[in-house]
Amino acid sequence: MAEVESFALDHTKVQAPYVRLAGRKPLAGGVVEKYDLRFAQPNRETIPTASLHTLEHLLAGYLRDHLEGVIDLSPMGCRTGFYLVAEGPLDEERVLVALERALRDVLLHQGPIPGASFRECGNYRDHDLEGAKAWAEKVLKAGLRVQPTVPLEGR
Amino acid sequence: MAEVESFALDHTKVQAPYVRLAGRKPLAGGVVEKYDLRFAQPNRETIPTASLHTLEHLLAGYLRDHLEGVIDLSPMGCRTGFYLVAEGPLDEERVLVALERALRDVLLHQGPIPGASFRECGNYRDHDLEGAKAWAEKVLKAGLRVQPTVPLEGR
Ligand SMILES: [Zn+2]
Ligand SMILES: [Zn+2]
Repeated sequence: MAEVESFALDHTKVQAPYVRLAGRKPLAGGVVEKYDLRFAQPNRETIPTASLHTLEHLLAGYLRDHLEGVIDLSPMGCRTGFYLVAEGPLDEERVLVALERALRDVLLHQGPIPGASFRECGNYRDHDLEGAKAWAEKVLKAGLRVQPTVPLEGR
Repeated sequence: MAEVESFALDHTKVQAPYVRLAGRKPLAGGVVEKYDLRFAQPNRETIPTASLHTLEHLLAGYLRDHLEGVIDLSPMGCRTGFYLVAEGPLDEERVLVALERALRDVLLHQGPIPGASFRECGNYRDHDLEGAKAWAEKVLKAGLRVQPTVPLEGR
């Protein structure tokens, strides 16, 4: 699995509140893209925090294994999915295929959750590997599609 | 307050699970930076989901008002802070000053939470403006500092 830089911080040796430069990435091209990876139907379902957190840890590595240019993958505050920031231009179909593969890796994941120890993680108690696998399976069974943006009217 | 593109999606008209291109940003320079904005002490405190979600909505706009080049601001899965992805080079001190100003704006925020209606948000029920203000106040009172990265030993 790809290295994830945030797991290299010793979380026992920092003092909040703070601002820390976590990484600097020179870009070959000149476009950064943001993808909305939605696992749960807005306002109908939410991913529990422990499952969401474990998915964040697993997908951080597995998605990088299948997709070049990943800059950040973070959960949404609404807990229905993730935002992916990546060096582009990619396209939705390529991101979809990489996400499917990464979710299959999550399903097959054995052993400890990467970066989930007391020293590597900001909340090592809030993890749920079985829950993360259940969400990965649910998404794979339902089948990912490409969703065009439906803009709000009257804006 | 700055416009936030994710609030322009009609959340009632999409069908999860999906992949959606949410934005494409051509960069003037060639460096993307990631900042760890830590509000809560790792493994000792966590920000409740509703406060974290409201902070995400408010800071998305207010931080952009004080800092150029913001690409993404997302909560951490561990719920102790946010990751900021921005076009650089910036530096920690500049990000710190912008974050302080944005947190002061959160404290002074009046009226509805931006983008928090049923159509604009993925989980419109999970918001807490008073909780978001309490966290902003706590961070401002404690005082933000620049935290160097303390790497894990043996890596
Ligand atoms: Zn973590
Ligand atoms: Zn929201």
